[in-house]
Amino acid sequence: MKNKAQIVIKRPEGLPDKSTWELVENEVPELKPGEFLVENHFISLDPAMRGWLNSSRSYIPPVELNAVMRSGSVGKVIKAEGDTKFNVGDFVSGWGGVQQYSISNGEGFFKVDPNKAPLTQYIGTLGMPGMTAYFGILEVGKLKADDVVLVSGAAGAVGSIVGQIAKLKGATVIGIAGGKEKCDYITKELGFDGAIDYKNESVFKGIKTHCPEGIDIYFDNVGGEILDNAMIFLRRNARIVICGAISQYNNSVVEGPKNYMSLLVNRASMQGMVVFDYAHKYSEAVSDLATWIIEGKLKSKEDVYDGIENFHDTFLRLFSGDKMGKLVLKVKETND
Amino acid sequence: MKNKAQIVIKRPEGLPDKSTWELVENEVPELKPGEFLVENHFISLDPAMRGWLNSSRSYIPPVELNAVMRSGSVGKVIKAEGDTKFNVGDFVSGWGGVQQYSISNGEGFFKVDPNKAPLTQYIGTLGMPGMTAYFGILEVGKLKADDVVLVSGAAGAVGSIVGQIAKLKGATVIGIAGGKEKCDYITKELGFDGAIDYKNESVFKGIKTHCPEGIDIYFDNVGGEILDNAMIFLRRNARIVICGAISQYNNSVVEGPKNYMSLLVNRASMQGMVVFDYAHKYSEAVSDLATWIIEGKLKSKEDVYDGIENFHDTFLRLFSGDKMGKLVLKVKETND
Repeated sequence: MKNKAQIVIKRPEGLPDKSTWELVENEVPELKPGEFLVENHFISLDPAMRGWLNSSRSYIPPVELNAVMRSGSVGKVIKAEGDTKFNVGDFVSGWGGVQQYSISNGEGFFKVDPNKAPLTQYIGTLGMPGMTAYFGILEVGKLKADDVVLVSGAAGAVGSIVGQIAKLKGATVIGIAGGKEKCDYITKELGFDGAIDYKNESVFKGIKTHCPEGIDIYFDNVGGEILDNAMIFLRRNARIVICGAISQYNNSVVEGPKNYMSLLVNRASMQGMVVFDYAHKYSEAVSDLATWIIEGKLKSKEDVYDGIENFHDTFLRLFSGDKMGKLVLKVKETND
Repeated sequence: MKNKAQIVIKRPEGLPDKSTWELVENEVPELKPGEFLVENHFISLDPAMRGWLNSSRSYIPPVELNAVMRSGSVGKVIKAEGDTKFNVGDFVSGWGGVQQYSISNGEGFFKVDPNKAPLTQYIGTLGMPGMTAYFGILEVGKLKADDVVLVSGAAGAVGSIVGQIAKLKGATVIGIAGGKEKCDYITKELGFDGAIDYKNESVFKGIKTHCPEGIDIYFDNVGGEILDNAMIFLRRNARIVICGAISQYNNSVVEGPKNYMSLLVNRASMQGMVVFDYAHKYSEAVSDLATWIIEGKLKSKEDVYDGIENFHDTFLRLFSGDKMGKLVLKVKETND
């Protein structure tokens, strides 16, 4: 049995080019007792993966050179040796990496039910992006019903859920996204109160128009100029949730928020978050999110591309913005 | 009766030059009922005054052109008309402005006791700088006994008190200050655990040496490169208190903290503060601070310069760093 995998062979500078990874094919090794083999169906493509390619200190160790590229995944257990955490036939989500088959002892994997939700949703709204949105807006952002919430990356996997949760809780929600299609999606399909198309209009003017009394929460996925503009409109005791900074991930020198003294003037705070810290409460979030999905109150889109050989091109869509919702790579070759 | 006052006649760009203010002498007007006249003894010189000169939105309105320069003050009530908040002979502190005599209805003024502490201390450790330090480190910083605390502007009016309060509560405290004299002062006289002389050594290396396991609280009075260096060493759940950014106050474009993604990696927060928010609790702080002073556990220095005509030169010492502790201008002309 052969396994195709994307191996990291070079640390990129700037936007990763094709020479960052190599697609290799190797024999799947024998399982040791306690291990199981997962046939990966879908791989999660997330902005955070760019950071894991750097050699510098972060919230998890960098991906090592010559190792399989780290990623979230969802698939089916097709083989098990001895006493294993999951059984053959179980569907599981975890850190499978960008490859067709993963071997695991179960650490970091959990069981999912393909009858309750499409598999791709377990790496989207019911997976890390959903957990990030849920705890980010509710716990880090300390959302209140009368808040005005501004979200960047608003049509993305995290931003779209953040905005919908905030709406569900009664807040006014404005999203920033790139292009008319995304802006229409968040206002017409997801129910955001307004959208700012950063590719075609001034973000400063957009915030001024949509948030005439300022913002209580800015949920930031992008950093850079948009963060700087958001800071201008902070209200007293506003909270900025730093979830990501996709505009900066490929820069060698990060652009710091030059309007940060707005934090002082407005007694505001800016706090970073890493979703893993909430692992002990994931089930609470999954339960709420699943309920909202079933009730039709929470929508999501997955943008699925096909083929492990297309990993690089698909990954770059995160940075060009040329995707809608959660970006997913299908790596299962057949539809048996 | 004549009053000399420093009037703002021009909004400065960059470091304020002499043409920003004009020293004028006018007749003291008649008091209206409810008003009293204060003979100002000392004027408080604070970095925040630079911000009040800008026309842009801040936590209090800008000082208007042709108005007396705003400042804290301490002095003696020498005249009162009708039913007044204070009586002739009372010593009071408040927003007297950079002038020899102030007329007030009592708003923003409070009574002080020259027998309990030197007058200058009521615009220092027992005034705004002390209040800022107290609520900044305890409430915004959420100081815990086992924290490692880094303070910039450590020999200044706020920083020196922040560090001493943190020491009193059991924390490890490292200060950043400019020059050997200040560094010796905070370690040998104030009991800081270590000092980094930013004028003569690498702040990065200094933090690395003194805080080998990183920092839990960074109390920032300066901004710029020092803030960026501090961010590199944040520990998990660290707090940055944004109290000021004196290195940036004269810049037309503020240098944003380019290492702010350290907030994400370390689940850290950066929060701004304005001391006025704690006005309802000032008496609690004054009581604690006064007790510590009496017990010899809290020390402070006031650096007093003489003459309202020397306001501009003295004010600039805030930015050159050519002063030790709290900067004060004596405006009372005689020692009667």
